[in-house]
Amino acid sequence: MILDHIAIVSSNIKRDVEWYKRTFNCRLSYEDETWALLKFDNISLALVTKDEHPNHFAIVDPMVKNDKNARKHRDDICYIYKKDPSGNVIEIIYEPSN
Amino acid sequence: MILDHIAIVSSNIKRDVEWYKRTFNCRLSYEDETWALLKFDNISLALVTKDEHPNHFAIVDPMVKNDKNARKHRDDICYIYKKDPSGNVIEIIYEPSN
Repeated sequence: MILDHIAIVSSNIKRDVEWYKRTFNCRLSYEDETWALLKFDNISLALVTKDEHPNHFAIVDPMVKNDKNARKHRDDICYIYKKDPSGNVIEIIYEPSN
Repeated sequence: MILDHIAIVSSNIKRDVEWYKRTFNCRLSYEDETWALLKFDNISLALVTKDEHPNHFAIVDPMVKNDKNARKHRDDICYIYKKDPSGNVIEIIYEPSN
């Protein structure tokens, strides 16, 4: 099973995008004022604002499309959020075109 | 650049290892009472106890071996911890045998 991304809360998306690009060899895939996506070789790192999402990581699982609680992101990706027994937030995602 | 692992705080390592194995298709690589390592296809997920580490993710960077503040884990892996401008904890690691 693949982990699609890690999402961490940023207090300033633009500043942190510049810091990650300067500090590590990663590539900017998307950026607006509410979130950004940085590509590392094996996984993506999402910078998100506190009001949008908590810190989490995302696991790809096609079974999520059969979950009656699944919702869709604007880009048609099915998702649900769940918590592990310690309260860590996990996003389960599936992109139908994959 | 590769992200080696994500580390999340667990309040009960044994319980959460069972939950992850039951819920996702991942493989247990190591487990003791203080931490465990679960292997996904593209990255590892470490369950750690609160007293050992905060939530973080680890990036592989050979340059860390030249950092005068670098320390060594018991398994000879060089590491430093740093924070991004928003305060997220990043571990920079390098295993000399790689």
